[in-house]
Order: sequence, then structure tokens, then C-alpha cells
Amino acid sequence: MRSLTVDSLNPSLLKVEYAVRGELAIKAEEYRNRLKEADHGLPFDRVISSNIGNPQQVGLDQPPITFTRQVAALMEYPELAKLAPDVFAKDVLARAAELKAEIGSIGAYSHSQGVPFIRQNVAKFIQERDGFPADPNHIFLTAGASSGVALLISMLISDPKAGILIPIPQYPLYTATIAQYDGTPLPYFLDGSAEWSTSLHEIKSALEIAERDGINPRALVVINPGNPTGALLSEETQEELVRLCEEHSLVLLADEVYQDNLHKRSTHPFTSFKKIVSRLQSPVPLVSFHSISKGVMGECGRRGGYFECTNFSPDIMALIYKMASVGLCPPLQGQICVDTLVRPPKEGDESYPLWKKETDTIHEALASRTKVMAGRLNDLPGISCVDSPGALYLYPQISLSDKAIEAASKAGKQPDTFYALALLDETGICVVPGSGFGQREGHWHYRLTCLCPGVDEYVGKLEKFHKSWVEKYGQ
Amino acid sequence: MRSLTVDSLNPSLLKVEYAVRGELAIKAEEYRNRLKEADHGLPFDRVISSNIGNPQQVGLDQPPITFTRQVAALMEYPELAKLAPDVFAKDVLARAAELKAEIGSIGAYSHSQGVPFIRQNVAKFIQERDGFPADPNHIFLTAGASSGVALLISMLISDPKAGILIPIPQYPLYTATIAQYDGTPLPYFLDGSAEWSTSLHEIKSALEIAERDGINPRALVVINPGNPTGALLSEETQEELVRLCEEHSLVLLADEVYQDNLHKRSTHPFTSFKKIVSRLQSPVPLVSFHSISKGVMGECGRRGGYFECTNFSPDIMALIYKMASVGLCPPLQGQICVDTLVRPPKEGDESYPLWKKETDTIHEALASRTKVMAGRLNDLPGISCVDSPGALYLYPQISLSDKAIEAASKAGKQPDTFYALALLDETGICVVPGSGFGQREGHWHYRLTCLCPGVDEYVGKLEKFHKSWVEKYGQ
Repeated sequence: MRSLTVDSLNPSLLKVEYAVRGELAIKAEEYRNRLKEADHGLPFDRVISSNIGNPQQVGLDQPPITFTRQVAALMEYPELAKLAPDVFAKDVLARAAELKAEIGSIGAYSHSQGVPFIRQNVAKFIQERDGFPADPNHIFLTAGASSGVALLISMLISDPKAGILIPIPQYPLYTATIAQYDGTPLPYFLDGSAEWSTSLHEIKSALEIAERDGINPRALVVINPGNPTGALLSEETQEELVRLCEEHSLVLLADEVYQDNLHKRSTHPFTSFKKIVSRLQSPVPLVSFHSISKGVMGECGRRGGYFECTNFSPDIMALIYKMASVGLCPPLQGQICVDTLVRPPKEGDESYPLWKKETDTIHEALASRTKVMAGRLNDLPGISCVDSPGALYLYPQISLSDKAIEAASKAGKQPDTFYALALLDETGICVVPGSGFGQREGHWHYRLTCLCPGVDEYVGKLEKFHKSWVEKYGQ
Repeated sequence: MRSLTVDSLNPSLLKVEYAVRGELAIKAEEYRNRLKEADHGLPFDRVISSNIGNPQQVGLDQPPITFTRQVAALMEYPELAKLAPDVFAKDVLARAAELKAEIGSIGAYSHSQGVPFIRQNVAKFIQERDGFPADPNHIFLTAGASSGVALLISMLISDPKAGILIPIPQYPLYTATIAQYDGTPLPYFLDGSAEWSTSLHEIKSALEIAERDGINPRALVVINPGNPTGALLSEETQEELVRLCEEHSLVLLADEVYQDNLHKRSTHPFTSFKKIVSRLQSPVPLVSFHSISKGVMGECGRRGGYFECTNFSPDIMALIYKMASVGLCPPLQGQICVDTLVRPPKEGDESYPLWKKETDTIHEALASRTKVMAGRLNDLPGISCVDSPGALYLYPQISLSDKAIEAASKAGKQPDTFYALALLDETGICVVPGSGFGQREGHWHYRLTCLCPGVDEYVGKLEKFHKSWVEKYGQ
């Protein structure tokens, strides 16, 4: 038989790139395995995975929210309510009993769109957040935001000339998914010199280029709070973006998974696009994504989230439902976690004080680490870094000398990848080079998470490495 | 702005059909909601969802395996080991502690391919099952078998002329996925008059048609035990199929999710394709799919499973890994359930007697219900039904009179859909018409699950309906 070769496979998949779990992450994993050997010969004793917003991973160990986990345990093994009732607060037992009555066993497939009762609770959450109604039938529970994004993008790419406007830098899920479904990315640049703000002018330029190239723009992706930038949009900018979508008949894909990761709430608040679209009574088709993986829960491993569709016709909703049904249903443990996300304990509930303490601690730690890290990185020669008001990341810009760029070129690497590989080799810290997110030509960055608990030791390593780099390659 | 219309969306998605959750299931759900009203006016008091193999759903209520759920509860809330140790058997506590030590929190993303330790256990399970080695690096944990099948099919469809050989009748995931990724299905017919056996002759005919039409066959899908047919392949046939894949350079996609649902083990045993390929030392690229949703666990809602790749080159494995990584990782609760699937309690373990009793009960109930249902359906006029030796379904053939076909045509329905809709309207039993799985022209079927606990009442309703149908439309 002829052997199966990569060249014979779907060419669109070959084009897909996903740096968050790419070369750096694979090498970090090799190091992690090598560290188990007594005589590993590495200049560090642990690997710190700062490449991905995964707060509960070993080494970062952000504790899960007790309320969420107790409800989950009771749903797994409902007999616990009888066998060990004293372990659980009364409102936890009541929540689990209520979910059990609505869902039955979490071992059963649910409605493909997600448990109707949980979608009702999501709708109430949205309504309370925004002050505008939400319809449970317009909400789809998902296996994390990623699967929802993939479904929507695959639907909107009708042919290779279909274009999707994406911010640069962007979370590479977008470029990966657009490549997978053989569409055309239409990049628009965010402004690193102005807190990574979004400019209408840049989007209009991207639309002009699309028109010149015969690309049909279908959707505008906005990530708010930004990933990797942490930037927050002003309501004024949001209104302009909605108007622009109206003008160009674009679907607005609003990635709002970091809506609860706000480090400067008074100066940089979050407003949902659902609220803006509702307030403007705009006809723009909007899909807003949320997730249990981020915020203070950080329940990445369960795979849960939702998206809400606004201004979609019933036949398009039916198409989305059909496609969701081929995958049967989102994971039930993700779904019930969405319930605890949108219905946390309330003041007066037995579990409220613990929930409040746990969530406050995580919010405060993240905000303070972000600030400290940004400050110390900015003090380093050749590094400038926006002090992110939101999300889980910093995205420092690094200036790289000609000598460094030449050395990178000799090694067959992008300069920022070369920097990140050296950082990993010397410190065990794994970050993602900016080339994975996109950046202006000649600019270099990396993304790192602000999740590592021992911030002093962590930033100390980054500083020491950078100083030795500057000594070696100049600035 | 121009409004967003279905016509402007990805045309491949419009072609997708998935009858298992289609028209019948949607109507059944409407009935279920209507039954909540006091004055519902329906001639039944509950809906029985026999359209989908979902054993734990409300109304069927197959109990989960205690071992699995206890381990899951401890992983959700590890403090239980201290707070309520007496609730759990010693081996359950030990298993949870072992998984916790390997994984850390189940709220963290795992390796994109699945937790390495669990993949090692899957490899041992395969090795013990088949007597041939298995490599953990060739195993991908998945969110159910469906997501793995979608990934592989999307990879193999390099262009619209890429063909995938699928059995008819088939589980509609295959036609749906091939349509979604714009490939060409190459149907080969199973023989309903010979226990739904697979014939090389039929596959060769399909290959000839492909050649005539300029379609490039890439893969052969085999479902063993069959869905919807319940048929089991003989080792002789399996060897022939492997040889045929060699001859035509086909990837063999072996859907083996029902490998533990065997009702006649002595006469109809299961042999994995991995074993056949290994024994023949064949170079055929094989992907074998397994799932936690079927077997005796029926843990559909967690979304877990795995696939094993045999005879794939490292660069193709890297491509599969890259695509898996864009989705980050399979749900952790699905992954740990795979661990309890491949490592059930052993004789001597404290939890073994209960596990044995629970699994024996489910095996026996399924085998006996299948036999009773097949026998009674075969006694009805115009129904003939293979007494399935495996899986969870029966796939009776129904003869429909010209009068019935004419009435269906007037209603704008396929004749078997018309029959299934009438069954649902009169009894509340939801089945899937054969047109959803494919059938020879002029043949009519439906698929129903053998999961309903009160088999007498259930089959009684089917009988009563069918008799009144025959009275109305003749035979």
C-alpha cells in the first residue's frame, strides 16, 4: 500500500498554528519530565508554565472555589447528601438538590444547547448584569469558549474569500480556527503605545485592504478584556464598533471571557457588547462568549462556558442547534459549573462568607501581582509593558539588538521565539513569544501569565535572565 | 445593514443532517414540555426517548457505577477523603489519591492529548485485551468518540473528491461529519437478511463507483459492534477488511465504542481491529475509537473516550496533536472516567463485589431486554428484526403499504419518518427513522434503544401502535 503522508491530508490543517501549546510548551514538558531524573543537569528545579492561563495547574495551584466543588461532588455522588450531610453548607445541599431535580443524572446527555434550567439562570445573570432582557433560547452552553468560537467561525466562513477581522495581537484560537476552516484573517492592529486601545481607523484600513483584495468581510472579533493585552474598551469605542458593524454588515464576535478579571474596576470597568447593542437598539448580529476557565474560578479542565446570540434569525439559530447536536452536548460538569458561575452564593447564604473570602483573595492577588510584575518589568532596560487593567496576562514589548536578531536567524528562529527559548532554557519559565499572537513588523513581545504565586522569586528570575541577555546581546 | 441570512453561511453546514437529534427528538421535547401542563390533551403521560443511547436519562434511569462516581466525587472535592472517609471503600480512596497525585486539580487544563498517566493505563488495557503492545503516545483522550471521529475525518478530507467509505445503515455522525468537512461519502450496504453482515463485495462495488466518479477513497469506516445494527464482525471478515485497506491504501477508522455491549459472547465475541492489524503485521493506518458513554457505564454527559492510532507517522501524529491542542484538552471528568473504565476494581478490592453486581445487572438486563424485544417485534405482522448480538439497539425493518406511503407523501414526509411520527404522537415513544441511518431503496426501518426498564409496558405500546397502524394502512 501507499503510505499515508502529511501532504495528502487536509491542507487547511497544515496551516494552523497555535503557539500557546506550541514549540515552547512542548519543550517545557520535556524539561518537566527530565526534572524527574536525579541527574537532570538543568539550571532550574522546576518548570513554570506561564504560557497559558491555567490557574489551577500544578505549581500555580490556585485553589478552586469550595462552593463550586462541593456542588460538583454532590452531583457526582448524590448519596453524599445523606451519607455526609454535615460536610456541606445548607445552600450547597439545596443547590445540588435543585440541579438534580432539574437535570437528573449528570451521566446523561443533556439538551444539545445545554440544560434548559441552567440557560434560564444564565439569561437572568445577563439581564442583571446589563439591565436588558436575555432569552434562554438564544444561549448555548459550550465546552469552553473555544468550541463555541470554532462553531461560529466555521459557520461564517462560506468560502475562502470570507474574511474575519481580528485584533493583532490576538489569542491564536482565532487565527488557528480561521486557518482550519480556510477563511481569510483580516488583521487590525491595536495600539501598544496607548494601552493597547482599539482604533476605528485601523479597522477601516483593514476593511479597505479586504476590499482591494476581493475579500468579503463577515465578522469582527473583539476580545474585551483583551488577550494578550489586558486592555478594556471604553463604551464610546464599543458604540463606534457596533456602528461600524452595522455599516459593513458584520457579525460581532465578542470574546468576553475575562469580564470578571478586572484589576482597576473604577477606571477600567467592563461593559458587555450585549448592553451596548441593546441600548443602541442595533440590528447587529452579536455573539458574546463567556467561560468558566477564567475569572476567579479558573475551572479550565471541566470545559464549560456559554455564548449568547443576539439578532440572529430563527433559521440560523436552528442551524447552530443542529451543529451543536452533532456533538451531542457540552460536558455536564462544565454546565453545572456555569450554573455556579452565574448563581454564586448570596449574602445570607451559609456558604457566602467562605465564597466571598476565596474570590476576594484571588481577585486581590491577581491585581497586585499584575501591578508588581508590570512595574518591575518596566524597570528593566529595553522592556516596556502596559500595566494590564484586565485579564490574566502581561504582554511586554522587548527591544532586541541586531546581534540578537542575527543570532536568532542563525538558529533558524524568530527573534522573540529565540528570546523565549533562552528564557526557558535558563530559568524554566515558559512564556509565549509575540509572534504567536501577531505584532507589528520589527516589534517583539512575549505573553506571560500573572498567576505564579511566588511573585518575587518569579520576577527575580525574569530580571536576572533579561540582564544577562542584555549583557550578551546588548540592548 | 444587510441582514444575515442562512444562504450566506457555510454551505457545507447546510447539508449536515443528524437525525438522532432531529425532527423526532425536537417534537418529543415539545411533548415533554406539554406534559407538564395539567390539561395537555396527549394520549400518553410520558415521553420515552428511545432515539438515543443515553442510559442514564430521566425515565430510563440506569444507575451509574458507584466506583466511578465515588472516584469522581473525590476528585471534585478531595477534602472528602478526610471529612467523610467512611463513605468510601479503601480502593476508591487509593485510586482518587493516586489520580490526584498524577493530575493535581481536575480544574486545570491537562496535556492536550490527555493526562499521560491515564494514557498509560489505557495502553495497558489495550495490551491486556489484545495481547499486543500499545503505546501511550499513540493514544488521544477525547470528549467522547464523536470529537475524535470529527478530528480524524476533517484531517482525511483533503478536498471535495476525498471519499470516506461508510456502512449503510450507519450512525449519522459519519454522514454529518463528512458533509461538514465537504467530503464525499462512499456508502456500502450491510446485509439485513444475514444479521447485517459486512460483505467485501459491497465495499468493492463502492470502490468501483468511486473510481468511476473520480472520487479518491481515503478511509474505511467500520462500526463494530454495529450501530444501528448491533452486528459483530467475524475475525475472518476483519482480516479481509484489513487486506482490502492495504490494497486500496485506506485508513481504517474502527468505531468500537460498543465493544463491551455483547449479549451473546460465546457465539458473537468482539475482537478489536488493533489485534487483527497487529497479528497480521499489517501496515494499515488504523484509528480505533472507544467511549465512556456506552458499555455498562453509560456516562454520556461527561464526554469522555479515547482513540488509538496505529501505523501513523510521527509528523501525522504531530498534526493530530496540534489540532487537539487548539481545543486545549478533553474534559478532565471524562478523562478520569476513562481511567475507571480501563481500570475497574479487581477481585479482592473492597469495592469489587458492588462493582461486579452493578455491572452484571446492567449486562444481563440489556441482553434480556434485547432478546424479548426482538422476539416480540418479530411476531408483529410486517416487522422483521435481527436479534442484535451487540450494542444498545434494534433496527427492525417495517413493511409499509402503498396506502401508507401515499399518506406519507401527502404529509411531505419519508414513509418511515411518517411511521415514527405517528408512533410518537400516539405513544410518546421517540425512535429514529431508518432514513436517518440510510437504507436500501424501498426498505424502511427504525432504530430504537433497548434501554427502557419496563420492557413489557414499552413493547406493549409498540405492539398496540403497530397493530392499529396495520388496521389503518394495511400491511
